[in-house]
Amino acid sequence: MNNSITQLFDIKYPIIQAGMVWASGWRLASAVSNSGGLGLIGAGSMYPEVLREHIQKCKVATKNPFGVNVPLLYPDIDQLMKVIVEEHVPIVFTAAGNPKLWSKYLKSHGCIVIHVVSSVKFALKAQDCGVDAIVAEGFEAGGHNGIEETTTMTLIPLIKKSIHVPLIAAGGIGSGPAMLAAMALGADAVQVGSRFVATPEASSHSNFKQEIIKAEQGATVLTLKEITPVRMLKNPFYQKIDQIYQGGASLEELKSLLGRGRAKKGMFDGDMIEGELEIGQVAAQIDSIKPASEIVKEFINTYNSCLNNLSKIN
Amino acid sequence: MNNSITQLFDIKYPIIQAGMVWASGWRLASAVSNSGGLGLIGAGSMYPEVLREHIQKCKVATKNPFGVNVPLLYPDIDQLMKVIVEEHVPIVFTAAGNPKLWSKYLKSHGCIVIHVVSSVKFALKAQDCGVDAIVAEGFEAGGHNGIEETTTMTLIPLIKKSIHVPLIAAGGIGSGPAMLAAMALGADAVQVGSRFVATPEASSHSNFKQEIIKAEQGATVLTLKEITPVRMLKNPFYQKIDQIYQGGASLEELKSLLGRGRAKKGMFDGDMIEGELEIGQVAAQIDSIKPASEIVKEFINTYNSCLNNLSKIN
Repeated sequence: MNNSITQLFDIKYPIIQAGMVWASGWRLASAVSNSGGLGLIGAGSMYPEVLREHIQKCKVATKNPFGVNVPLLYPDIDQLMKVIVEEHVPIVFTAAGNPKLWSKYLKSHGCIVIHVVSSVKFALKAQDCGVDAIVAEGFEAGGHNGIEETTTMTLIPLIKKSIHVPLIAAGGIGSGPAMLAAMALGADAVQVGSRFVATPEASSHSNFKQEIIKAEQGATVLTLKEITPVRMLKNPFYQKIDQIYQGGASLEELKSLLGRGRAKKGMFDGDMIEGELEIGQVAAQIDSIKPASEIVKEFINTYNSCLNNLSKIN
Repeated sequence: MNNSITQLFDIKYPIIQAGMVWASGWRLASAVSNSGGLGLIGAGSMYPEVLREHIQKCKVATKNPFGVNVPLLYPDIDQLMKVIVEEHVPIVFTAAGNPKLWSKYLKSHGCIVIHVVSSVKFALKAQDCGVDAIVAEGFEAGGHNGIEETTTMTLIPLIKKSIHVPLIAAGGIGSGPAMLAAMALGADAVQVGSRFVATPEASSHSNFKQEIIKAEQGATVLTLKEITPVRMLKNPFYQKIDQIYQGGASLEELKSLLGRGRAKKGMFDGDMIEGELEIGQVAAQIDSIKPASEIVKEFINTYNSCLNNLSKIN
């Protein structure tokens, strides 16, 4: 496969593994990059020196391009950026914040820069900041998300029409046929998160991986819209959030319930009761843990067979 | 195009025009059927004798198959069903209720019966009731919707895997490329609602059609989840609903605000302030009013060109 995204990143397949907190360290990122996709280290859950270690290990584990995902609201953002530049990371995905300042900085250091958005408005702003490509993330995606609740099906054509840089679709993409759907809608590549959490290479706790396998339709919800919208499993921790809403939520109550440790407690430490478990709607389609390389292979095989089948209907 | 749905309905293209309240009378249904798709008369906003008139006029206006959509919670449902059977309507789509009783009745009178669902659970129930096909409707769809908030992108593969009867995708499908995306996800056909409201043939008020053209991303919201979830434009009437929620909503307050006349007031009488305006997220993609026949033609042309382009990437 050969298009604007495979050329931009110098990769074989237009499949990007999302940089996810508590899931995507060097093991997952290098496994995906070795399989012909683009692996991303999720820096959001790493101290700067932990990130440096992951980058260095990733360089040893793969000779292919890989990247880092940085949430721009990270408190010591300048420290993270320093590590990224010092380690000559070739590709940086930024999210959750204003790309203006850091896009320029990263590009001046030779990085390819991509920004994640969930609306047309922010896609245009990111393009104005000079990013090389845009990730558009639909309502069904796991983790942090937009307030407009626009789904991948409707968001991708809208953003495609508005921008001229390459477009990567995210949210609800857990198989080759869904990848084909996203490409039909106008995407040049897909970013896949949830499906790569259920791999042996993901650093998430095995309890969390098992919960993903058990998840059925309706198992996740987009909540905390007043603070920062996030999609998570409806586990007992979410039930507590819901109770606060039922009682007429105050921001203070919600914030004190959340704290900063909830995501780590759930996804990394494996506390399925008290922890926050961020995952997308696509979890309902996941019924096994398998190596990242197999997932990439299956995506490509089923993408191709699906495309062939569609050609036959005509 | 030739597949299980074009054969089931004896139509040229697997495009079904959704039966919508205050929008799809005989003019729209016959225009779509004459263009090679399947037109549906939306009975939800019609008295039984009004429905009879629409069916009779539709028979004169097209020699092609057409159908009727019936919300099963309609108060005088037995009267509507009587008219449908007396008039020998060949195809009936049922929605919003339990298909058990009426599927059997309609099939015993020779009708092809399709039921609309928004979850795997209700898809399986409908299949058990002997329906001939299922419509699966994602979160982005206009009008009444499910409580799980599952998007078309994630819902279609889940339902496809669970059922053996043909599957029609609905929600977020406003163009040929989106139709191709739905077919890639596993659908055998698409049901298109919002796009067909912005036609001269739709019986909706022209004020409403103009609002659809003006709608941008984020213009709609799925609300009233405690009563019956419905997606509508965020007009002043919705702002009133939102105010009640902000004040700690009571069911009584919400119900009294709604009344039964709000949908008619908005979509048919053209009151953009006090009326309820049901439409899908795809409204943001609609920028013109054009004849239904042109829409069908464009769907097929852009479906084919999109499929050709995708074949070239490989």
